Amino acid sequence: MNEKYEKLIPHLNKMMALETALILLQWDTETLAPVEALENTAKAVGLLSGEYFDAMVNDDIKNLLHELSKPENFDVLEFNEQKIVKKLNKQLKEMECIPPEEYKAYSELTAKSAAIWAAAKEKNCFADYAPTLEEIVSYNKKFASYRNDENKALYDILLDDFEEGIDMKQLDEFFAKLRTAIVPLLKQVVAKNDSIDKSYNSLSYDIEKQKEFCKYIAEYLGFDFKRGVIAESAHPFTTNLHNKDVRITTHYYKNNLESSIFSTIHEGGHAIYEMNIDDSLTQTPVGHGSSMGVHESQSRFFENIIGRSKDFWAPLWDKLTTTFPEQLKNVSLDQFILSINKAEPDFIRTEADELTYSLHIMIRYEIEKLLISGQIEVSDLPRIWNEKYEEYLGVVPPTDTLGVLQDVHWSHGTFGYFPSYALGNAIASQIYAFIQTKIDFSECLREGNLKPIVDLLREHIHKYGATKNTNELLLEMTGESFNADYYVDYLIDKYTKLYQL
Amino acid sequence: MNEKYEKLIPHLNKMMALETALILLQWDTETLAPVEALENTAKAVGLLSGEYFDAMVNDDIKNLLHELSKPENFDVLEFNEQKIVKKLNKQLKEMECIPPEEYKAYSELTAKSAAIWAAAKEKNCFADYAPTLEEIVSYNKKFASYRNDENKALYDILLDDFEEGIDMKQLDEFFAKLRTAIVPLLKQVVAKNDSIDKSYNSLSYDIEKQKEFCKYIAEYLGFDFKRGVIAESAHPFTTNLHNKDVRITTHYYKNNLESSIFSTIHEGGHAIYEMNIDDSLTQTPVGHGSSMGVHESQSRFFENIIGRSKDFWAPLWDKLTTTFPEQLKNVSLDQFILSINKAEPDFIRTEADELTYSLHIMIRYEIEKLLISGQIEVSDLPRIWNEKYEEYLGVVPPTDTLGVLQDVHWSHGTFGYFPSYALGNAIASQIYAFIQTKIDFSECLREGNLKPIVDLLREHIHKYGATKNTNELLLEMTGESFNADYYVDYLIDKYTKLYQL
Repeated sequence: MNEKYEKLIPHLNKMMALETALILLQWDTETLAPVEALENTAKAVGLLSGEYFDAMVNDDIKNLLHELSKPENFDVLEFNEQKIVKKLNKQLKEMECIPPEEYKAYSELTAKSAAIWAAAKEKNCFADYAPTLEEIVSYNKKFASYRNDENKALYDILLDDFEEGIDMKQLDEFFAKLRTAIVPLLKQVVAKNDSIDKSYNSLSYDIEKQKEFCKYIAEYLGFDFKRGVIAESAHPFTTNLHNKDVRITTHYYKNNLESSIFSTIHEGGHAIYEMNIDDSLTQTPVGHGSSMGVHESQSRFFENIIGRSKDFWAPLWDKLTTTFPEQLKNVSLDQFILSINKAEPDFIRTEADELTYSLHIMIRYEIEKLLISGQIEVSDLPRIWNEKYEEYLGVVPPTDTLGVLQDVHWSHGTFGYFPSYALGNAIASQIYAFIQTKIDFSECLREGNLKPIVDLLREHIHKYGATKNTNELLLEMTGESFNADYYVDYLIDKYTKLYQL
Repeated sequence: MNEKYEKLIPHLNKMMALETALILLQWDTETLAPVEALENTAKAVGLLSGEYFDAMVNDDIKNLLHELSKPENFDVLEFNEQKIVKKLNKQLKEMECIPPEEYKAYSELTAKSAAIWAAAKEKNCFADYAPTLEEIVSYNKKFASYRNDENKALYDILLDDFEEGIDMKQLDEFFAKLRTAIVPLLKQVVAKNDSIDKSYNSLSYDIEKQKEFCKYIAEYLGFDFKRGVIAESAHPFTTNLHNKDVRITTHYYKNNLESSIFSTIHEGGHAIYEMNIDDSLTQTPVGHGSSMGVHESQSRFFENIIGRSKDFWAPLWDKLTTTFPEQLKNVSLDQFILSINKAEPDFIRTEADELTYSLHIMIRYEIEKLLISGQIEVSDLPRIWNEKYEEYLGVVPPTDTLGVLQDVHWSHGTFGYFPSYALGNAIASQIYAFIQTKIDFSECLREGNLKPIVDLLREHIHKYGATKNTNELLLEMTGESFNADYYVDYLIDKYTKLYQL
């Protein structure tokens, strides 16, 4: 190993260890910790975050990175080392402008805020959550302004954290394209919805049997239980300590069969990505997935392109109907496929179908733009939320629990993340088009053999971790940089066939 | 707050935060983490332990403690502050003689070793575990020798870590007293065992129902689920992040009703202790239970003195028999009480009755003495173990799984801990004698009202955390320092009545 680079290793190790601890503390808080633990535990989280800050922002690191970034030193580094140096430079730049005390206070705040959100959601009381959210918004605006050396819009700075290089201009175009395609398609689709009977989905499904089935399906997709765990939380999510400890959560509802199944498949997609990252990268600053958009592309690829196809369910149908024979006795595979793809404007993003999903995202994107630019305040959110839902989806959430309180994201301080979901859908469609040129996708699914599909994803995307960005991955894999047309074509093709339009 | 003491606070906070992370990582490894996670996670644990070491052993801390220990400074500190300074001085003395690299390597080793032990136990293969155990023993001897400035026996140094001031001389006397009392009593008891039918205990008990019942009983004892969690692990244990996050584990066996119930009550006793520690102490170096002996006194008090009494079960009997009506239909409360107190030499410590329990401990104590003094090697353990079981209990474990591999402790590097269990039994008996002079113990239990009992424990023991040692607590509570006669009297009285000797 390069002698200069070697000096960086103890610093990287320290950051990795502190990050591992912080991730585990967050996982634990959201899945297991007792309710009254929060206050004391947040104190420890704040302190560890302060340690992480100190481990990242200090003169040793600055000098080392400065040295390593000089062309004569940088050029002789190995590929992964170069990527790590670049990543650290970016991270350092982001963090060094934040006063350590503010960083620590913010970490302490966000260690508690998801639980405050969850309680407010449970009580349908936005006011309980508003003061916390106001603090979080204010920190995010402040932190973005600290590093705004090019006088950009603050929201562009936040967007860049999740998808390098993407800004409001591009997203406005992207969403305009989607809106133009989706809104008329959705109208045609909704007109034919009456014939789809989804009533079986809200019958009573034993929770233990749902758990068993979800475990089965996760393994079927390639989730390795020797390297992963499934637990429960209010809002499904994926996290990982390293590539041999990847964790997903889901939520089981007695009267909703689809919910746990599709959140397991979705989070399973995230998890398989993390499990497939190369051993040489895990526990380094580039040892996790690439951009959030690429991460979402994997979860949505599994959830929608694989998980909502008839080819996927054909070999699984017997298993599902023998697990729930009473509930599904009058349901055919074709009916089930229509039902799990039924497109219908509704309130909840995570339960949304493929067609309306990106409209849910568009609403959040527009609201975040307004909020971060200061055109609206936190107290305006419930009103604006409902107005936008009425405008784009034609529905008004009857409660804030089903409206503005539905998502955990803002409580984590992630503003600028939501667009990644829509970008992820589009990336997934582009990848899908490529994969179909390489293998008989349908046949693999019909034969219950997902290996060739997962192998392609691993070889072209997963194994690289964060050493390549979205466009590098897409260009190398598909020969083309990001192109949203694949997504529009995919949606039109899928829904035209499915609904016989 | 004292100005000089105030400078210590950031150091205390850093240690607390790192300790919280390390405790959570250990909890997670033993309860949830996927099997292949171990190697990578141990790397993070090793690094965090190194950070903890650096946070404790450095010139800032040394100088601060040196200053604060001067009489003119020490005497003006508050009670808790004095205890914290004393505790840190002791900890610093223990740690500063260990080279940081050895400390880190040892932490990394013990982060993995419990899983290696568990796998070897599962396979009944001591040889798989032996190399790891050899390393652990060697580190423990080395670490003890580093701080052996008075040329003591190494095992005396280890004993002092768990019970300040106790040494082999006192333990030899203690165990001799127990042996003299227990061995003849056990002989009388075993002679009358034929009439006790325990067969109901190995019928089939639904795991979910066991879980429900154990949860019920934990709450009944005073375990607060807003501040605690019950999970599952191979070997039941208690851990805590602070007084509002206390966690116990148990293990459910389909064909053993008593196992999960009594391990829940036992660990519940540890947990209630930690939950009752004063808010002003939690997250400080004296914010956990006093000595290991005092901790075990609480778990054994709940398990045996409360949990195996007829008065305790009288108001619970209906609940138990309606939970398992088929299995218990021919069992009376009196039969049940005799059965859960049946004394019989057997292989497994954790399943042992009150009478043989301390003999199991005596065996471990004698083996540890030999091992740490170098009179035997790790490779001798299976043989010596079986010889001692034959000598003291008249039984020879048929496998190492049921013999030398049964306990997790050595894999954690805890040598000198086992005697605490026997001391705990004795301390519990002394406390019991005191409590009976204050309240009508039997009546409280019969009325299902444990509050007066737990209140006395909290007020005299729990709330003080580690600010008082065993003898201080006993002296202030009972007016007498440690006296093992109470234990002997308790056992003779209990078994004479129960077995009508």
